[in-house]
Amino acid sequence: MRKNILLAPIAALLAAAPVSAQEEEKKEYPSPNAIVDAAPASDWKAIAASDLLVMDLAPDAEGNKRRVIIQLMPEPFSQGWIRNIRKLAAAKFWDGTSINRVQDNYVVQWGDAGYDNPESGETEQKALPEGLEVVPEWQYDGVDPSKEEVIVLHPSEYVLDETYSGWANFVDGWPIGSATDGGDWPIHCYGAVGVGRNYSPDTGTGAELYTVIGHAPRHLDRNIAVVGRIIEGIEHLSSLPRGKGQLGFYADASKRIPITSIRMGDELEQLPQPAFEYLDTASEAFARYADARANRRDPFFIKPAGGADICNIPVPVRRVAAD
Amino acid sequence: MRKNILLAPIAALLAAAPVSAQEEEKKEYPSPNAIVDAAPASDWKAIAASDLLVMDLAPDAEGNKRRVIIQLMPEPFSQGWIRNIRKLAAAKFWDGTSINRVQDNYVVQWGDAGYDNPESGETEQKALPEGLEVVPEWQYDGVDPSKEEVIVLHPSEYVLDETYSGWANFVDGWPIGSATDGGDWPIHCYGAVGVGRNYSPDTGTGAELYTVIGHAPRHLDRNIAVVGRIIEGIEHLSSLPRGKGQLGFYADASKRIPITSIRMGDELEQLPQPAFEYLDTASEAFARYADARANRRDPFFIKPAGGADICNIPVPVRRVAAD
Repeated sequence: MRKNILLAPIAALLAAAPVSAQEEEKKEYPSPNAIVDAAPASDWKAIAASDLLVMDLAPDAEGNKRRVIIQLMPEPFSQGWIRNIRKLAAAKFWDGTSINRVQDNYVVQWGDAGYDNPESGETEQKALPEGLEVVPEWQYDGVDPSKEEVIVLHPSEYVLDETYSGWANFVDGWPIGSATDGGDWPIHCYGAVGVGRNYSPDTGTGAELYTVIGHAPRHLDRNIAVVGRIIEGIEHLSSLPRGKGQLGFYADASKRIPITSIRMGDELEQLPQPAFEYLDTASEAFARYADARANRRDPFFIKPAGGADICNIPVPVRRVAAD
Repeated sequence: MRKNILLAPIAALLAAAPVSAQEEEKKEYPSPNAIVDAAPASDWKAIAASDLLVMDLAPDAEGNKRRVIIQLMPEPFSQGWIRNIRKLAAAKFWDGTSINRVQDNYVVQWGDAGYDNPESGETEQKALPEGLEVVPEWQYDGVDPSKEEVIVLHPSEYVLDETYSGWANFVDGWPIGSATDGGDWPIHCYGAVGVGRNYSPDTGTGAELYTVIGHAPRHLDRNIAVVGRIIEGIEHLSSLPRGKGQLGFYADASKRIPITSIRMGDELEQLPQPAFEYLDTASEAFARYADARANRRDPFFIKPAGGADICNIPVPVRRVAAD
């Protein structure tokens, strides 16, 4: 039987001096959070406000504001869809659209649910802004069949998670899969944001988006574009009532949650701009954090697992005071 | 670097006759759900009402009933805690307790939050019923150090998910981990129900329970007792507002959700008893379902993943008409 490999522990990465068994026993094992809290300021990297997508929902039943902040992926991933998303935000396309689907242990989806025109009997959709790209399927994982060009990252420093058709690792703050036969792709973890689409060869424009609210649906990797991740406010989506229609769509249109606006972080009407930073995934602090996630030895734990799925090592992101 | 193995595809299991490449191409690939729907009645196994724990919450803001149904684990797993849980239900211990913690992408926890006595200034807890067992830690994974006895299942028919300290597989309808050095344990997947505890050597009584509402926290395996899984109504827990206190506890006690009652499925005041069945994990239909989860080839998909985390192959459970 063929076997795929997952999850080599990254303890081997740690540049620790050899210690005796006795010293090892005496050593204190901080929790993953404590390691992150102790990371030096130089290990944190700023996230540009121009790479944030800020979604405001209508206030909840108690009048509380609901803001969800999405970090878009850096190059070279999914950039065709991300250019479309920037155009859609600039055109205020999503203002007045809604959250339409909440499927337990799977996804929350938003976009234009359409308007049922009583005169024509048709469902009408908003016009998309001009100039959106039709993104080719090869951009899911970076293998361009026409050019024989491949997005090749294959970071060789450490392989965290060898799985399925290749392996996985962190690249510039993101969980990334890599195929043995070439190509790299963003991984669907909890909070990942992807582009809804119809059947192939449609790849979606970016007007219809979803986020993961359950166990990582890794079968979607290389089949749908991942364009970002939620870095604040996911609870405003994950705690919504589940839809009772097929696939978790709200069968009753009145249950949809109105989206007031979606804007780029540097184009908000109200200041300050949101300011965040992430823990450099090439830092020693991140390696220690990832090892601690895979091998919990802080006081509550008895038996370290010896490994962790890459989606159980969320990249630490924190809010910082705006300038 | 040591590597742990995860996720051999189980395609090799399928007792399919060899087919030519041409025939293979013509073959239709049903979705995982279609495979489950087509499974013969003989592949479904009844779940006894006496193995169900039925939790009723206070109605929601719109007056809708909220019932959550938990299937308890079969022998030989976690039986000490499960005996306690049966006693707690019989004593109506949980009636008037509450959901106290909702931590995003992690757990929902319930039990006795205690009563702040204004006279004494102390937090008072309900008395536990007499005769609860103190369950030893070895029952987390079945290795009894005093007796050198081991729960050994090590199902050899097919290894689905070799990971961490051993491998994982389905046994009698449940995802189970197995260590290379002996011992077996239930795996924390989405919807798994476990026993809250304090620091070791405390193992919890079963009075404080939680369920997983995010990516499988496999680092909890072998460290906490898994006693069951939610088979209906998890949305009444997963869609609750997230707690704003430490670890997702409700800082404001008024946010707690009252538990009206928890009863065994065969001790409900109102009939009919809940009746469910699960797809036999030793059946050919289950093997085909698991393979389809690992290798999606139904029309939406382009590139099959080639593998799946065991927690991304939820065991199909369905409600059946009561007698």
